[in-house]
Amino acid sequence: MTAYDELMAFQRDTEALGQVAGRLGWDQETMMPHGATPQRAEEHAAMANILHARRIAPQVGEWLDKAEAADPVAAANLRHIRRDYERTAKVPARLAAELARTTSLAHRVWAQARADEDVASFLPILKQVVALRIEEAAAVAGNTDPYDALLDDYEPGATGESLGAMFAALRPRLVDLRAAILDRPAPAMLDQAFDDAAQLALSEKLALAFGYSLDTGRIDKAVHPFSSGSGLDVRITTRTNPRDPFNCFYSTIHEVGHAAYEQGIDATHLLTPLGRGVSMGVHESQSRIYENQLGRSRAFTGWLYGQMRDAFGDFGIPDEDAFFGTVNRVSDGFIRTEADEVQYNLHVLLRFDLERALIAGDLAVDDLEAAWNDRFKADFGYAVDKPSNGVLQDVHWSEGLFGYFPTYTLGNVYAGCLHVALRDAVPDLDDQLAKGDTSKATAWLRENVQQYGGLRTPVETIAHATGAAPSEGPLLDYLEAKFAGIYGL
Amino acid sequence: MTAYDELMAFQRDTEALGQVAGRLGWDQETMMPHGATPQRAEEHAAMANILHARRIAPQVGEWLDKAEAADPVAAANLRHIRRDYERTAKVPARLAAELARTTSLAHRVWAQARADEDVASFLPILKQVVALRIEEAAAVAGNTDPYDALLDDYEPGATGESLGAMFAALRPRLVDLRAAILDRPAPAMLDQAFDDAAQLALSEKLALAFGYSLDTGRIDKAVHPFSSGSGLDVRITTRTNPRDPFNCFYSTIHEVGHAAYEQGIDATHLLTPLGRGVSMGVHESQSRIYENQLGRSRAFTGWLYGQMRDAFGDFGIPDEDAFFGTVNRVSDGFIRTEADEVQYNLHVLLRFDLERALIAGDLAVDDLEAAWNDRFKADFGYAVDKPSNGVLQDVHWSEGLFGYFPTYTLGNVYAGCLHVALRDAVPDLDDQLAKGDTSKATAWLRENVQQYGGLRTPVETIAHATGAAPSEGPLLDYLEAKFAGIYGL
Repeated sequence: MTAYDELMAFQRDTEALGQVAGRLGWDQETMMPHGATPQRAEEHAAMANILHARRIAPQVGEWLDKAEAADPVAAANLRHIRRDYERTAKVPARLAAELARTTSLAHRVWAQARADEDVASFLPILKQVVALRIEEAAAVAGNTDPYDALLDDYEPGATGESLGAMFAALRPRLVDLRAAILDRPAPAMLDQAFDDAAQLALSEKLALAFGYSLDTGRIDKAVHPFSSGSGLDVRITTRTNPRDPFNCFYSTIHEVGHAAYEQGIDATHLLTPLGRGVSMGVHESQSRIYENQLGRSRAFTGWLYGQMRDAFGDFGIPDEDAFFGTVNRVSDGFIRTEADEVQYNLHVLLRFDLERALIAGDLAVDDLEAAWNDRFKADFGYAVDKPSNGVLQDVHWSEGLFGYFPTYTLGNVYAGCLHVALRDAVPDLDDQLAKGDTSKATAWLRENVQQYGGLRTPVETIAHATGAAPSEGPLLDYLEAKFAGIYGL
Repeated sequence: MTAYDELMAFQRDTEALGQVAGRLGWDQETMMPHGATPQRAEEHAAMANILHARRIAPQVGEWLDKAEAADPVAAANLRHIRRDYERTAKVPARLAAELARTTSLAHRVWAQARADEDVASFLPILKQVVALRIEEAAAVAGNTDPYDALLDDYEPGATGESLGAMFAALRPRLVDLRAAILDRPAPAMLDQAFDDAAQLALSEKLALAFGYSLDTGRIDKAVHPFSSGSGLDVRITTRTNPRDPFNCFYSTIHEVGHAAYEQGIDATHLLTPLGRGVSMGVHESQSRIYENQLGRSRAFTGWLYGQMRDAFGDFGIPDEDAFFGTVNRVSDGFIRTEADEVQYNLHVLLRFDLERALIAGDLAVDDLEAAWNDRFKADFGYAVDKPSNGVLQDVHWSEGLFGYFPTYTLGNVYAGCLHVALRDAVPDLDDQLAKGDTSKATAWLRENVQQYGGLRTPVETIAHATGAAPSEGPLLDYLEAKFAGIYGL
């Protein structure tokens, strides 16, 4: 066996163990008995220790020194493994353990603080988390910007500066679009209860309509919908709310987008570093284009309207055009995860600027709440009423996930670019979508994005599919045109 | 840290990883998408490799050399870890790998052979499995009987000779009892369909009645019911058959017996070698006493009769006495897993004698089917009609599990002993059981057997609870008395 073959055999087991660890997380959110929590923490920790030890195993370094890439796939595998090995090896074991311990504690403190609406009780541990992540970034980054070192965990190659420029271009046009929309009369809302079982039945139909394979997947309920797993076992979850069936349907379509990416990767990459979505941003581009550009399009919502009438009878929306408005209704709200296409990115931009300032040392943790509230007021025009609607609303910072938020908006930007290319390639797309048929769209995405997994960098992945470097223009043009139509701007 | 503390910290992680690997098996039987099979095989193998490497890790040997036991719990932990370490270390890596590969292949060949009713196609690979297990036994056993070395995996301390003597005493009385019963008119059978959802609802009620905790457990459906996990996450499965609700109810109670053992172990033993049931035989004693001596008793079936009337209305059995007969009906059949209390052990004794002869070299694999069919005719009085009802019916031998079968009957023998002691300790037991209340019985079993987990050897565990060395007499006396009553012998 060559050094490359030995390395890949070792890596294949590591990937398989990573799948096992990931499924433990799935189980925890869907199946685990409540009383198992303390034991599960030890199981997670034991798996994490195993995976960490394999990531920095000395023989990996030796194989990497000797391995030669015979083709582009091998070169990409080596690039991923080397990057992971070097990054992991740079973080001292003491620091890694302290990060794990502190974020685990911080998560619990945050949950309590949010329940109590008590920001002050969260700040001491958040300071520790920020300090530890800055220390980690310094260990990893060398002379580069510490925030970039953190960002690189979720979106390899992205920098705070480049994202900052992109987001600076997004913000004014989104603020203006939002203000223009909210000046106009709003479409009707749904205003009745929708049977839970019927919601789940239609949500499964939607998952299948978007090409999700139940042969290598399954759908369960969870408090917060998520997608989990790679390769031949990619599971999604959804939820129901009797008053808000769109939450169920569009959560499902969103998670199907993530899952379709994993299910769409070329089978030859199974249990290799190429056999997973290449970055959070590209992942989010798939979930978002499924959910928004396809799922919330006029053509597809026309079909969905008929499906909902079949499932629920008359629910007070007179026709497809009105339903398109209802699905895409823009209204005030504090919560990122409940935001519409227009306002969602404003929530993300706020978090990106604040966390970048935190890591740069330009914003003190003690000043975070005030900074949040000021910025929210500036962009949304009204004041945060309580911390659970403001600085305490998201779990991410308690878990130390600085650098994660911007990938949400980056995914939307990528989805905007892909949508233009998709429309060019499939001119009659709306004819299919109007019949609930997404097969041409999903086939194009599979062919041009999904199948490659981690073969290229994130930016290369999008550029390969669209023929151009990604930029924020297409997303903005799409949003302005769509909502001008709905709101008569 | 002392050597003992270091060893136990390492062992704790190993136990946690063992729980993760076990839950992977649970997932495979209950939740896994069909198409995930090939990937799952790699995940299982990766986990097995990790666990194997930890079992024979050199530092375990060093810690064992230095560790000192400060108390009986520590002494028992060291005994378990030392036994496992020495045993695993004696099997060459080449042999372990070949066993894993060959049994995995043999399992598939067996399934196909059973479907095709083609014994000959299974024999070549079965010969390999037998030869490999004999080789393993020789590596482990040194000068002792190879069969004992295999048996020791499932029932530490048991020997083929001691079990052989016990089983030789069982067989004639069971054969006679069976013959006497089948000479008499049989009780009525159930003869209608029973709603699946109502079966599951009542089966959950039964699980709770027998003290199963859903706070640290859950119930799902599986093709073959099983119990899985230790400590704070102990899951059971059941199944439904519209024509045979007893299959659902008594499978559930049986698995609850296994699960209650795990849930009943003292919490201080969590994720240590003492935190699991001590042997297959003692485990089976718990499942069997829950299922049979308690669950199929006149008193408890009286309560169950009322529950079934409430759930299903009149199902053609006139009263509690008739229902007691129906539950305990003895009838001809080829299949071990479907056998009643009386005939079950005859099925096991047959397998024990044949597999012991195979491992001793006294029976050739080529002669196995004829030996099976002869013995079946001798004990049951009629001929095996096809291999799937005979030598191909069980999965065990294809997986190399020689030494496993006798623990089923050993469990019944232990249950017989425990039942006598339980009746002595709780003279008014039937008053509770008649109300569907098993709390005194399960509390006694928890107090006298379950809480100790692996603290004592299997035989010591039973002797501690009953005050005497286990023997087959109580089981035979119980069966003869019970069925004399039902059948008027």
